Amino acid sequence: MDATHPYVRDLDRNTANYTPLTPLTFLERAAGTWPDRTAIIHGRMRRSWAETYSRCRRLAAALSRSGIGAGDTVAILAANTPELFEAHFGVPLAGAVLNAINTRLDAEAIAFILRHGEAKILITDREFAKTARQAIALYAAPLIVIDIDDPEWTGGGDLLGICDYESFLSGAPAEFPWVLPTDEWDAIALNYTSGTTGNPKGVVYHHRGAYLNAVSNALSWSLGDVPVYLWTLPMFHCNGWCFPWTMAVSAGTSVCLRHVRAEPILDVIRREKVSHFCAAPIVLNMLNNAPADLKLGIDHKVKVMTAGAAPPAAVIEGMEAMGWTVTHVYGLTETYGPVIVCVWHDRWNSLPPAEQAALKARQGVRSPMLEEIMVASPDTLEPVPRDGVSIGEIFMRGNTVMKGYLKNPVATRDAFHGGWFHTGDLAVWHPDGYVEIKDRSKDIIISGGENISSIEVEDVLYRHPDVLEAAVVARRDEKWGESPCAFVTLKPGAIATEESLIAFCRDHLAGFKLPRKIVFQAIPKTSTGKIQKYVLRQLAQTL
Amino acid sequence: MDATHPYVRDLDRNTANYTPLTPLTFLERAAGTWPDRTAIIHGRMRRSWAETYSRCRRLAAALSRSGIGAGDTVAILAANTPELFEAHFGVPLAGAVLNAINTRLDAEAIAFILRHGEAKILITDREFAKTARQAIALYAAPLIVIDIDDPEWTGGGDLLGICDYESFLSGAPAEFPWVLPTDEWDAIALNYTSGTTGNPKGVVYHHRGAYLNAVSNALSWSLGDVPVYLWTLPMFHCNGWCFPWTMAVSAGTSVCLRHVRAEPILDVIRREKVSHFCAAPIVLNMLNNAPADLKLGIDHKVKVMTAGAAPPAAVIEGMEAMGWTVTHVYGLTETYGPVIVCVWHDRWNSLPPAEQAALKARQGVRSPMLEEIMVASPDTLEPVPRDGVSIGEIFMRGNTVMKGYLKNPVATRDAFHGGWFHTGDLAVWHPDGYVEIKDRSKDIIISGGENISSIEVEDVLYRHPDVLEAAVVARRDEKWGESPCAFVTLKPGAIATEESLIAFCRDHLAGFKLPRKIVFQAIPKTSTGKIQKYVLRQLAQTL
Repeated sequence: MDATHPYVRDLDRNTANYTPLTPLTFLERAAGTWPDRTAIIHGRMRRSWAETYSRCRRLAAALSRSGIGAGDTVAILAANTPELFEAHFGVPLAGAVLNAINTRLDAEAIAFILRHGEAKILITDREFAKTARQAIALYAAPLIVIDIDDPEWTGGGDLLGICDYESFLSGAPAEFPWVLPTDEWDAIALNYTSGTTGNPKGVVYHHRGAYLNAVSNALSWSLGDVPVYLWTLPMFHCNGWCFPWTMAVSAGTSVCLRHVRAEPILDVIRREKVSHFCAAPIVLNMLNNAPADLKLGIDHKVKVMTAGAAPPAAVIEGMEAMGWTVTHVYGLTETYGPVIVCVWHDRWNSLPPAEQAALKARQGVRSPMLEEIMVASPDTLEPVPRDGVSIGEIFMRGNTVMKGYLKNPVATRDAFHGGWFHTGDLAVWHPDGYVEIKDRSKDIIISGGENISSIEVEDVLYRHPDVLEAAVVARRDEKWGESPCAFVTLKPGAIATEESLIAFCRDHLAGFKLPRKIVFQAIPKTSTGKIQKYVLRQLAQTL
Repeated sequence: MDATHPYVRDLDRNTANYTPLTPLTFLERAAGTWPDRTAIIHGRMRRSWAETYSRCRRLAAALSRSGIGAGDTVAILAANTPELFEAHFGVPLAGAVLNAINTRLDAEAIAFILRHGEAKILITDREFAKTARQAIALYAAPLIVIDIDDPEWTGGGDLLGICDYESFLSGAPAEFPWVLPTDEWDAIALNYTSGTTGNPKGVVYHHRGAYLNAVSNALSWSLGDVPVYLWTLPMFHCNGWCFPWTMAVSAGTSVCLRHVRAEPILDVIRREKVSHFCAAPIVLNMLNNAPADLKLGIDHKVKVMTAGAAPPAAVIEGMEAMGWTVTHVYGLTETYGPVIVCVWHDRWNSLPPAEQAALKARQGVRSPMLEEIMVASPDTLEPVPRDGVSIGEIFMRGNTVMKGYLKNPVATRDAFHGGWFHTGDLAVWHPDGYVEIKDRSKDIIISGGENISSIEVEDVLYRHPDVLEAAVVARRDEKWGESPCAFVTLKPGAIATEESLIAFCRDHLAGFKLPRKIVFQAIPKTSTGKIQKYVLRQLAQTL
């Protein structure tokens, strides 16, 4: 249709009929319609949506007063506290981009992220003061530092910044002008993934995608009227899968929690009648195995979303015996969190438990706001047959796929090669359209819900003077799901041991990334000299 | 941020990360994920989502084969049947624009709509054959006519077209290529409003708005997992408030129904366990007053959405005594149906019934996908105080506001004057942000849920040789809510009576638009000669 077509001519956008999609409008609506409803619970503290809205606007005002504006990066290193929740609104309200950093990273990795993201300000919790101090020193660029001094944290830690978060907000006006992004394609968040290469990549989210995935969560989980959502999933993971924004569109209650341990989780589920939470299978396993007396008095329905690995049958059965419902979902940092859902069909309820678990182990079908998925050859983009056997890579298209990688046009181009997003995950496609991951993309190890790049671990090993060759693969781990297993060839005459290499890694890697096992042997290679990780992965399972 | 900013550079749209928003993708997902779930029930006929998807694609193929393509108008004159439901997907799948016509209009009005919308094809149900035949004759332009020969319709009526709908589909391939709009701003539907002027105006909807209002319905009504939706609201009203598309995103079941009468409604609610329906207060009143034996055996919860007028207290009480929940919503043809919702707060449940009814009579607050509302002076756009007393006009902004009026740039410009959509409805703004309509815009009469333009009725009266002046206003009507009341000044020596003028109108107007009362008297005017309709409206209530 050209510009003279009757359905086009004189029917342009204007401020009355076009507003950039942004989850910020959900906040204003939650506060306007349900001002007294509880938005945040943290320990004994409860805050309404009206108060939360006011605090988010004051955060925006304080940032603005500190010189933060359109396109500036605001980094935050925080546990699942109200401050991190508020930052999901206050930072973009100031026009800035939120960069929530994985608190489990070491100082070097955090410094890399600060540098690469060009952070202007860092909001950091006392719990992480030691690492943050090192990271700030390594960053060596001008940085405004604000401390979070959470009353729920009693473990000490230095205050590093110019003031604490409450002081930062205290002088700022709640009447900060309510400005929407000029374009829904504008960046709202930056999330670093360990990805498939050693250096973390900065995944850029836009307002449109954040809005749509927030809505998709509410729809695909049938969130209903007054969800009470427990923060077990870290908000630094893909912005908590966009759930801060989902809670705003649902005007639900967020129950914050600093640490993922069975007792406080079960305690708060009982006390606050938590209706929904997201967690890695390892967390569900922990809850499942918790002493029965911790579960006494929990008799309401709880809906659980899990991802990162297929939930084991025993975990699903245990949860369902408690009257809880587990939904298996799948997504990546690049897709704003979950975009594939293992939609459950009632007719499956009559199947034997093992068959139900096998069905629930599949990643599933597209969520309402992801437009296309396919399993296809990574070389030709030709879809594989839907036979449940042929393996291909999962590809996606839709509005909840990232803008791209920050300052990394090569990686962005590769990720979108052929007009599809390449997940790097290998799967089969079942006749009913459900995808099931059969193999992780070759480099990634998922340990306790955290991605570990095998290349990053290899890089450290290679820095040891005794190491000739190193290859790291995932090995099944009863507790963590997977853990890194390193295959190493030593230089002639070298004397390094498993213990000494792990100790060396400890100086350069976060604890969760350490290899749990090191095997000294020759490393199998293809005729062209490429390491055969597939062989090593199989070998690792037998050790 | 300019093009060189790190959050902009090399982070462009591509086919992997940007898809135009369109409700068509919901259909593909419903059929892919829930192929066997029932999409449509019509009498004894039941069709799955897989079958419905296939039929919609065959409709698109058949339209395409008939030369229908991008930007062509497909008109349909149908009751709430599967064909009209399918047209909501099949027509836009062919790139065309759906124009569902109010079946209660007379031939002249329908011919005007066909002409103004430049319809290339008309799909028409036998029930309306007599009017359709006249309208086609008046249209006098090339038009492909397809008949709907619904087995649930036993009242006869000529077949007017080249074939019936089933034959039209029968030869068409289900593999019609699945093409999305090139731009989410492309038109998806055309809906004529009687508006505030005599000639109907063609409201143009785009894919983006249809997608968003479909989602908004699901969210604001907490539709849940398997809604069973009864079609009491005509699908020709704002595309059934976008509910055909809502049913696709929810993969719900649509129960079709040709006629809105108590017995078949209650019968099907019981038999199919209908969970949701939309209806004008007059329909709720009818159900409320239906004999008790018709309601026997209905013991499940039913959620009802109503609009067009505030639901009377007795109706709300009656519904709730049956365990049904009534939600009051508000919208216009220009806003894709409901965009303001009277959100209910639990704390109101303890109030006396009269106070609850007063609260529920308010139109409410914005739905999640409408971005802004205000009550303001129509002259200055200055918001009125939120005091529940000051009257202003309701203004809106958001993505579920129309593209504009087809081939009517003047009306479009007026509607969007000052960068806000002018609803023409006068309301107060309560301290809690709820709007409450106090006066309809001066020209509209709402009778049995249908809009009647007073100017259209006046135009007909003016065509009578005896009439000097005529002014038509709304008058309260126990059965219809409102009905037209005409004030007429006759020419000197004229002899027309109330009866003869009504008979004259009957030749030129649909039955529901006829004045129920005609008063002969001088018509009050302002000093500048404008008719004081406000005075007449007050007068009409006293007659």
